[in-house]
Amino acid sequence: MKDKSQSQPFVERRSVPRTSDDRWRTAITRIEPNKIILRGFPVDEVMGRLTFGETIYLLLMGEVPSPAIGSLMEAILVSFIDHGATPPSTLAARNTATTGAPLRACVAAGVLGFGRYHGGDIESCMYFLDAGLALVRKGESYADAAGQIVDKCLQAEEAIPGFGHRFHTRDPRAARLFQMALELEVEAEHVQMIRAGEMTLAQRAAEASTTPLPVNIDGAIAAVCGDLGIPPAAANALFIISRVPGIAAHAREEIERHPPMRQIDPKDHFYDGPSERRLPERRK
Amino acid sequence: MKDKSQSQPFVERRSVPRTSDDRWRTAITRIEPNKIILRGFPVDEVMGRLTFGETIYLLLMGEVPSPAIGSLMEAILVSFIDHGATPPSTLAARNTATTGAPLRACVAAGVLGFGRYHGGDIESCMYFLDAGLALVRKGESYADAAGQIVDKCLQAEEAIPGFGHRFHTRDPRAARLFQMALELEVEAEHVQMIRAGEMTLAQRAAEASTTPLPVNIDGAIAAVCGDLGIPPAAANALFIISRVPGIAAHAREEIERHPPMRQIDPKDHFYDGPSERRLPERRK
Amino acid sequence: MKDKSQSQPFVERRSVPRTSDDRWRTAITRIEPNKIILRGFPVDEVMGRLTFGETIYLLLMGEVPSPAIGSLMEAILVSFIDHGATPPSTLAARNTATTGAPLRACVAAGVLGFGRYHGGDIESCMYFLDAGLALVRKGESYADAAGQIVDKCLQAEEAIPGFGHRFHTRDPRAARLFQMALELEVEAEHVQMIRAGEMTLAQRAAEASTTPLPVNIDGAIAAVCGDLGIPPAAANALFIISRVPGIAAHAREEIERHPPMRQIDPKDHFYDGPSERRLPERRK
Amino acid sequence: MKDKSQSQPFVERRSVPRTSDDRWRTAITRIEPNKIILRGFPVDEVMGRLTFGETIYLLLMGEVPSPAIGSLMEAILVSFIDHGATPPSTLAARNTATTGAPLRACVAAGVLGFGRYHGGDIESCMYFLDAGLALVRKGESYADAAGQIVDKCLQAEEAIPGFGHRFHTRDPRAARLFQMALELEVEAEHVQMIRAGEMTLAQRAAEASTTPLPVNIDGAIAAVCGDLGIPPAAANALFIISRVPGIAAHAREEIERHPPMRQIDPKDHFYDGPSERRLPERRK
Repeated sequence: MKDKSQSQPFVERRSVPRTSDDRWRTAITRIEPNKIILRGFPVDEVMGRLTFGETIYLLLMGEVPSPAIGSLMEAILVSFIDHGATPPSTLAARNTATTGAPLRACVAAGVLGFGRYHGGDIESCMYFLDAGLALVRKGESYADAAGQIVDKCLQAEEAIPGFGHRFHTRDPRAARLFQMALELEVEAEHVQMIRAGEMTLAQRAAEASTTPLPVNIDGAIAAVCGDLGIPPAAANALFIISRVPGIAAHAREEIERHPPMRQIDPKDHFYDGPSERRLPERRK
Repeated sequence: MKDKSQSQPFVERRSVPRTSDDRWRTAITRIEPNKIILRGFPVDEVMGRLTFGETIYLLLMGEVPSPAIGSLMEAILVSFIDHGATPPSTLAARNTATTGAPLRACVAAGVLGFGRYHGGDIESCMYFLDAGLALVRKGESYADAAGQIVDKCLQAEEAIPGFGHRFHTRDPRAARLFQMALELEVEAEHVQMIRAGEMTLAQRAAEASTTPLPVNIDGAIAAVCGDLGIPPAAANALFIISRVPGIAAHAREEIERHPPMRQIDPKDHFYDGPSERRLPERRK
Repeated sequence: MKDKSQSQPFVERRSVPRTSDDRWRTAITRIEPNKIILRGFPVDEVMGRLTFGETIYLLLMGEVPSPAIGSLMEAILVSFIDHGATPPSTLAARNTATTGAPLRACVAAGVLGFGRYHGGDIESCMYFLDAGLALVRKGESYADAAGQIVDKCLQAEEAIPGFGHRFHTRDPRAARLFQMALELEVEAEHVQMIRAGEMTLAQRAAEASTTPLPVNIDGAIAAVCGDLGIPPAAANALFIISRVPGIAAHAREEIERHPPMRQIDPKDHFYDGPSERRLPERRK
Repeated sequence: MKDKSQSQPFVERRSVPRTSDDRWRTAITRIEPNKIILRGFPVDEVMGRLTFGETIYLLLMGEVPSPAIGSLMEAILVSFIDHGATPPSTLAARNTATTGAPLRACVAAGVLGFGRYHGGDIESCMYFLDAGLALVRKGESYADAAGQIVDKCLQAEEAIPGFGHRFHTRDPRAARLFQMALELEVEAEHVQMIRAGEMTLAQRAAEASTTPLPVNIDGAIAAVCGDLGIPPAAANALFIISRVPGIAAHAREEIERHPPMRQIDPKDHFYDGPSERRLPERRK
């Protein structure tokens, strides 16, 4: 499951004409005196009419999302917003915060931690599902296509992107996202393909008498983004955007609750926030 | 208007006890097998029930916002989402993107550009308004308090934080945010103080026959955040969070539409996106 | 000891003319086809004739250092090159490395950790010593000047910048740097002032029956840089430059010797490198 | 010429045992009270005896370099120290500096710009030369091996890593480094292989009546590092380390000589530093 962002051929490096740089183009935001126009919409008209999540979609995809897609955007962005104090990206931000660095430096250090092993699975899983769907388009059944792409990984002793979690045996976020995609009627071939993959993995696990790896939140987002027509690079942008608030919250807490220059042992903490509680009634 | 984040006394540096590090505490997110609980709420229950903007408030402030506060959060986050291709933070991200760096590195480089002259005015303006409100609490009228804090800046030849813009003479985002705060009935003393400051500045400009500086979006957000009880450091976190999608969109556009290693002249571009258009009817 | 980089008045923010940007100037490096000229010297002539440390001085200060200054530059850069696995900047780099991020991202995350409490003492100590020397120029003795600036910190319960260390009671690097400055005959008023400060602190400690705080490496570098005519901002640049190799070495070791996505407890490691040894004879 | 740092198989991701984390090991620096021991050598003994460049080698490679290797280290580090105001990494640092960000943030933003198209050629060229040397070890002549690896790139329309430059037709740094390697008698098979590659490219250019691409500084460093036994990842670390002083010098100049929040057009500047001059006599 090669990182596609790294695999473009070298020729691109020097063969691109460098003389057409004058008057370069951008299609994101038009600035005029007293006017800021996002993808065609004046920002002051967007304020109060689109949510932040919908406006993120507008910026990345160029259009206002339908209500169903908007709801899924919010859910995807919420699903990743924080994963506690122990992910290395959060620890990089906390270690930066403890030196007295400003919040923006802590956020930057945290964002840099979305490396190959941490957050890259959404893009990888999208390529994985696309490989299966290419087989379906050639006439294979979903089950056969899933069998081929899963077995290819297993034989190469590669992990299957979008499956399993080093902490959760059943990722509650994945189940919720699939349920929402079903209710909002946006499920399509990518969700079908990842379901087929999950079934294949369950069979292989049964044959080997091991525990099957369930779909994780990366896999669920990959499948739903695929069905929404969001390309892998945009899904990766969503991941980065979604994680910033959690990193900022941890950096602020580090600054406000802990002494500077402390030694942060990720395993030696406990949660002292509110007990588990229910959302206010109107929100359900 | 000193940067308060830098002015804490040195003594804090070494006098904090360093021996209580064991079992450090965090109140943001509790992780258990198959459970991720944000400020007390299971993330899978938050998905589909709170928006991303509301969940950002939950992470930073610890509670679910009221519907009115939630609407203002969305508007604040949207207001700052992008300011075109020319801010230095966006150019740092584009210059990083043109080297072939991954999106996360471009976002980090962009976030680092929220330095003293770029994005710091929200916090500064909150301290400025608080100084005025301290006088009000001592019995001064809003007009007199505003006169004192404005004149202090003018005499020191300091810029007034939250007023004026190097590009816009009337910031459309500020007007919209104030209108929303009025309609949602959350206006209070901070908005009243910034209005008094605006009036003072208009008088001083009339006396000097110069153009008055209107409230800019930093000032509007500072006043509204003040009235919502959001502390300056959290307002600064909101600013950083709100700007990440725009930076990510510009970095992606740089990668997708432009040759690598190009020389980026910020003044020599034009907008080729959609013409000005209206939001779909249901959104108004 | 306020951070001077943050204390410039707001007025600078907007009063600077913005129209003179065309044909901006740089005095560092001239690039012509097949020529790269550093501060006037062709880089290919510098290669093999100046060391990296001397060329760093050339870039930052504009001139080739004298042999004595060159030797002190090397010693200053070496003195800070690494401080083991536990500084938060190193941990930020290691936490980034464990996510699979490339080396440049790890280095960037590490550099961001040179915050207020970590590496800022050189600049602060230079301002501290300058405050004392201003008194000397008004006719005070070194002892009286030192007494005044030290007591001002003590009364404000501020730490004295350049003194004490959270780990070492006697910093071996400071002693060595002072000895070199003495042998190379570059000692002057800044070294004399920090010595007077050390004596004052010893007296105050004796009066209070506490342990005196010795000069640390930050203080020694501050004094020597002051005597070499290196301004505080350049001394800060030296600190950042000097620490990069150590951060890079730790990031590479993290990648090469440890599993990805591990939980890094800073207190729970041990050193398994070479035992203490002597430099080859020719080097002494 | 795939980026090897990205191509490790997925299986590594999860199959590494995660339970052996307790008492993790580091071989770089041992810290004891009043002792800092770098790779076995007390830092205060290294100060004044090894240069910064030699100590960088010690940190990265674990041993004190021989005098010849030490000289080449200095030359390699100097060769890359700056390339003027226009590289995107330098512009990212300058765009960050103009926002009022501290030097460390500017340096971090600059370092992030060593992306795929900017600075990655050293590693790529080392793998390219190793591919040729693998053929030599199987019995091919250098000329035949060079023909095979060059033609493979040409047929794939890939750029040859280590050859050509978008600005210089003859890189003065490459010639100087090869001359030093010859004089210091460290030339070996990697230099021989890149020379064979250069000859092959000259023949292909003659056949096609085009201009031949000469070895650039990345290629020269790749060949010399190869002959010194420095692995590709360490050579990449050297590149990052070597570029930091130039980035820091540009960021400081931006802060000291230019107004904040300016629009930086990379093409519209001129050099106003010292005219070309000669090194002091003793240095030649």
